[in-house]
Amino acid sequence: MPNPTAAMLVIGDEILSGRTRDANMHHLAGRLTEMGIDLKEVRVVSDDRDAIVAAVRALSATFSNVFTSGGIGPTHDDITADCVAEAMGASIDVRDDARAVLEGHYARQGTEMNAARLRMARIPDGATLIDNPISAAPGFSLGNVHVMAGVPSIFQAMLESLLPGLTGGRPLLSETLRVERPEGEIAGPLGVLAERHGAVSFGSYPFIQDGRFGANIVARSADAQALGAAMEALKATFGEEDG
Amino acid sequence: MPNPTAAMLVIGDEILSGRTRDANMHHLAGRLTEMGIDLKEVRVVSDDRDAIVAAVRALSATFSNVFTSGGIGPTHDDITADCVAEAMGASIDVRDDARAVLEGHYARQGTEMNAARLRMARIPDGATLIDNPISAAPGFSLGNVHVMAGVPSIFQAMLESLLPGLTGGRPLLSETLRVERPEGEIAGPLGVLAERHGAVSFGSYPFIQDGRFGANIVARSADAQALGAAMEALKATFGEEDG
Repeated sequence: MPNPTAAMLVIGDEILSGRTRDANMHHLAGRLTEMGIDLKEVRVVSDDRDAIVAAVRALSATFSNVFTSGGIGPTHDDITADCVAEAMGASIDVRDDARAVLEGHYARQGTEMNAARLRMARIPDGATLIDNPISAAPGFSLGNVHVMAGVPSIFQAMLESLLPGLTGGRPLLSETLRVERPEGEIAGPLGVLAERHGAVSFGSYPFIQDGRFGANIVARSADAQALGAAMEALKATFGEEDG
Repeated sequence: MPNPTAAMLVIGDEILSGRTRDANMHHLAGRLTEMGIDLKEVRVVSDDRDAIVAAVRALSATFSNVFTSGGIGPTHDDITADCVAEAMGASIDVRDDARAVLEGHYARQGTEMNAARLRMARIPDGATLIDNPISAAPGFSLGNVHVMAGVPSIFQAMLESLLPGLTGGRPLLSETLRVERPEGEIAGPLGVLAERHGAVSFGSYPFIQDGRFGANIVARSADAQALGAAMEALKATFGEEDG
């Protein structure tokens, strides 16, 4: 059976303007690979209602899981929850279970609840809350869309709350051979190997280091034996420069 | 007149698998912001023909410019040029001008031309070459799609070859006020300010530092005077904690 698939939707003007460098994509990609969920696409869109709704609709119709980051705080530019509800045809309002989580948190902290904070209890009907052990305001899963915060430490904590409940697959195994030769010399023999080892996918990722050209050849497969054979063949072809 | 818009398409399994952290998105975002070209969307897709063709078609139909990174080297997994040609309805083959660039480069280096390297001279009919001062193999612009390498130093060099020929707009100016209070306290007054200063867009980007919650409030506008007034109002409301 093929692995479940996933897409990520990053919501945030600050990334598209170049002010902030996204950190959540790389983290999510690594965790999903470990679980055997194949991340197939990432989109970054601005804090724009139409753009968010269209992206949620397109991605949730195409992939097994959609993970969103950003736009679920208390300020006027936090519109993700409402957009996801609209995209999925759900109604949304302050929900008692989410309000109770926030009230308990603020009571323990001696912080006042106010109208802005109450916005973070707006959760679509039918959604399941995602625990936020850091700042309490929950994320949620609605259908196959998992809505999480953009602050990296909170995104990561929410993800760890969420992942055990998702269906994984066969983790994709990978091994890398670093070859200090230009890709133009690697390409011919690598193409032959790729034809021969059909159960393994080979990627060539070029680099320039100290003015010299090289490439990391990455072999990937869910089949450990096929991967081992491919790595032997790679080393026999290109030499054992690195593990 | 509104600013020209842009989308970026990052092609690469290595980013979706979590092996590599993308660096080109952040660089492109910053350079486009300086030029007054509004980056509206980024997509990351795998080295998959159908996914690349569909993304190029969707983005080139929606935005003024599409910038791609990755997949234009000599190895079997480099399929971007052929996919862009297909998406834009152009034919593609080895082109004499691109072959001449490569042959000159390899002759100077004393490197042999081979079948794999010749693949990098595959350029769609009607495309304009983008100069690559680092490793010679050119990028190209076909219609509004600008195809560049994935290696960051080459991507950046190609971008500097390309940008002077593109139409810019009014650079979006931005100023940031760092407020060391939780967003739940900031949100109410910030919403009022956002209503009052219609020519300015306000974003609130929360952070956690040393266990304390705060937010960077970013005001953006192409109108310097409106931005100045908004910053005065922000400082009057939240205090002048940082510039």
